[in-house]
Amino acid sequence: MSYSPLLTDLYELTMLAGYLEEGMEDKRAVFDLFFRTNPFEGGYAVFAGLEPAMDFLEELRFNPEELAYLSGLGLFRPSFIDFLRDFRFRGRVTAPPEGTVVFANEPLLTVEGTLAEAQFVETALLAIINFQTLVATKAARICHVSGEAEVIEFGLRRAQGPDGGLSASRAACVGGAGSTSNVLAGKVFGLPVQGTHAHSWIQAFPDELTAFRAYAKAFPGATVLLVDTYDTLESGMPHAITVAREMRKRGHELRGIRIDSGDLAYLSREARRMLDEAGFGKVRIVASNDLDEHVIESVRSEGGQVDIYGVGTKLATCSGPGGAALGGVYKLVEVDGIPKLKVTSDMAKATLPGKKRVLRATGPEGSFIQDVICLEGDDVQPGEIVYDPINPLQHKILPVGACLSDLRRVVMEEGRRTHAREPLEAMTARCRRELALLPQGCLRFINPHRYKVSVSSRLNDLRCRLISEASKRGA
Amino acid sequence: MSYSPLLTDLYELTMLAGYLEEGMEDKRAVFDLFFRTNPFEGGYAVFAGLEPAMDFLEELRFNPEELAYLSGLGLFRPSFIDFLRDFRFRGRVTAPPEGTVVFANEPLLTVEGTLAEAQFVETALLAIINFQTLVATKAARICHVSGEAEVIEFGLRRAQGPDGGLSASRAACVGGAGSTSNVLAGKVFGLPVQGTHAHSWIQAFPDELTAFRAYAKAFPGATVLLVDTYDTLESGMPHAITVAREMRKRGHELRGIRIDSGDLAYLSREARRMLDEAGFGKVRIVASNDLDEHVIESVRSEGGQVDIYGVGTKLATCSGPGGAALGGVYKLVEVDGIPKLKVTSDMAKATLPGKKRVLRATGPEGSFIQDVICLEGDDVQPGEIVYDPINPLQHKILPVGACLSDLRRVVMEEGRRTHAREPLEAMTARCRRELALLPQGCLRFINPHRYKVSVSSRLNDLRCRLISEASKRGA
Repeated sequence: MSYSPLLTDLYELTMLAGYLEEGMEDKRAVFDLFFRTNPFEGGYAVFAGLEPAMDFLEELRFNPEELAYLSGLGLFRPSFIDFLRDFRFRGRVTAPPEGTVVFANEPLLTVEGTLAEAQFVETALLAIINFQTLVATKAARICHVSGEAEVIEFGLRRAQGPDGGLSASRAACVGGAGSTSNVLAGKVFGLPVQGTHAHSWIQAFPDELTAFRAYAKAFPGATVLLVDTYDTLESGMPHAITVAREMRKRGHELRGIRIDSGDLAYLSREARRMLDEAGFGKVRIVASNDLDEHVIESVRSEGGQVDIYGVGTKLATCSGPGGAALGGVYKLVEVDGIPKLKVTSDMAKATLPGKKRVLRATGPEGSFIQDVICLEGDDVQPGEIVYDPINPLQHKILPVGACLSDLRRVVMEEGRRTHAREPLEAMTARCRRELALLPQGCLRFINPHRYKVSVSSRLNDLRCRLISEASKRGA
Repeated sequence: MSYSPLLTDLYELTMLAGYLEEGMEDKRAVFDLFFRTNPFEGGYAVFAGLEPAMDFLEELRFNPEELAYLSGLGLFRPSFIDFLRDFRFRGRVTAPPEGTVVFANEPLLTVEGTLAEAQFVETALLAIINFQTLVATKAARICHVSGEAEVIEFGLRRAQGPDGGLSASRAACVGGAGSTSNVLAGKVFGLPVQGTHAHSWIQAFPDELTAFRAYAKAFPGATVLLVDTYDTLESGMPHAITVAREMRKRGHELRGIRIDSGDLAYLSREARRMLDEAGFGKVRIVASNDLDEHVIESVRSEGGQVDIYGVGTKLATCSGPGGAALGGVYKLVEVDGIPKLKVTSDMAKATLPGKKRVLRATGPEGSFIQDVICLEGDDVQPGEIVYDPINPLQHKILPVGACLSDLRRVVMEEGRRTHAREPLEAMTARCRRELALLPQGCLRFINPHRYKVSVSSRLNDLRCRLISEASKRGA
């Protein structure tokens, strides 16, 4: 994927021009990208979007046509347009690898560079990371509740335009969806693609049986029949079983049937029984129709016999309370080595100042105990007191036996990746592994366990000092 | 914008290959694109996305790289890949112009062509029309409640990736948002772009006043100051007024101030009072921070003095009940001149068969009375009985004095546009005009008036006959 540098809010450009006027463009700046609330009222998020974000940073440059457009806005001096001509991102980025389980208030990306370059990339980084992290999280929730069943993403038709669907397919894969219906996503990201036929296929033939036979003939190795066009149990299933028998005589096996309406728990149980009784125990049952983690949970709790869930709209659009958007923000935390803080009347919106590390404290067999955000030079040790980031009056002691390790690493130096591109499968595997190490109450959908993210005592001290100074500086 | 033909669900390709195997690819087919429920639990929708949809149809072709990818999937015969090499869309499309106010169950696009071409374009058309119509509708709701105030769209950072934000900016404009922060949308669609500075601009300077002065110096003709970094009324506003006075001495006027947190109704009233008392009655007040139609309604009802609303996340992601996705579907309604119907156990999901027209009955001064869906050859007249599309037992008489006109026209013939590309401003104006002609109860957010969409008696008869035949055909 390639991105135009104009995919940005105008204010990034006006600020850039302003910094240039003031001779401030080369000051050293540090920005943190983070979100303040776990999405979906859930207990965690799955970080995604880093590779596309790094693509954007590496390729960032203005072409003559883009410069001409900006020039024509009548807003910028020629000297600024000249500045943009050679503008590149040459900074450093620190981040966790994709598929890492992360939490509210933790810096995900930290971007260091000149004030100009680090500020300018805000909008694009937010657009990429916010959406991919949101979809990866939704996918992880759906895949977790699906248990052994596979999940296919097929949200393209309800995504934010054709191009929004492409991002969604990639992120869904990070979160655990094993395949997609989106052919372009298959090509661009190397994902397995899946799909069979729509109701219109059935309608285009004189009757359902003829339509099933034609499909089995065309794709003998990959036949999945949609059985709910007329009546799932009275018509679709008997016809599918007839075709399965005919296929077997010709040396093929029906791969699956798909149910796209009605009571999925009941219908899938009945379909399984009918298939088993007819000697087709290996024919798989695919269910679809406005699924999300809650519907799948109830289908499973009612004994539904579904092997593959096809999840579209609610995955690609991340619907549900606390979904729709990840409220990721990008905040200045240091300029010229001086830690910075943004305060508003709302304490929860005050930022964590300075260049920071994110540590994960783990216990036996790598199980997650809690995370700690500290300053770069901090030497946090088990046994130390750490503080709640919103309410400094709340503190706790880091368990003595805990093992502390950095959640993030430098992924980009002087505007270039420091590591090879990671394959999507590695991210998917990381996500699955980490979700198993998380306190299992965090996976609950209703009132999940709140995983503890603390700040070190040095960071807490710095923040308290800057908050008290800030009102004076403003006035 | 250009779209790859691979931006599709795999099943469009497998069905296409199947039709080819059966020698059915050249049968004449008619598909309707429609949605079943007005978005946002509201009383209407604003149709959008037609021009991008026609771009997709006109440009549809597979390049050698795309064909090689499909070939490599191991799913398709070489003869099918050859078929795709020359595959184009050469069909007819009927649709309303963008910005038209439309309702649930009305065919929006009708696509006629070969079974192959008309089926294949399903996913892309849905992806384009669903999302653009959803955003245009959200924007119309927001703009309606904003009254005389302007609306700026700035949702890019929370959109579905950078590219989803571009579609959102365009559609928001159709619904009435007058400008955007998205620079690429400005370039691609010719939209006015707006933006000033972020909190980080303030933080990058030693204090707020210095930051304001620097911005006013850099953009003397377009200075909007963000006043809530430290304290809106105690710090931001007094500093903004100081800078406004300094600017005036140099022959410039401060254009506006922006409030991005806190009680927007109270703060905007106080800010207005401070500005007016200081002699800056023309400085405009911009409000932002997670706005949607409901927040704006309450700000206005509490006497908020806002001239410009900046709406981001909730516009670009269409959040809210009944939002997140428009459930548009694409259904086969005729093959080889024979009307087709899809039935499931749910009567509301049964389609309206055959090639159809959508008529709008209007009264004095063009006010909308109701819409009627009829068969292509129908001659519906005022005074006739028309039927509810879900419950055929409900019927009513079309008022005798009503004027009936077609909502749609042929927009594409043999795969080419039949009219010149329409400018966005014309769509925006149409939307505004039609919303004024709608029964005003339809604009209400809670329990809106349900605008009547009926079917003609001939269409109702056909549908009832096909429903009773369908179960026999299935069995």
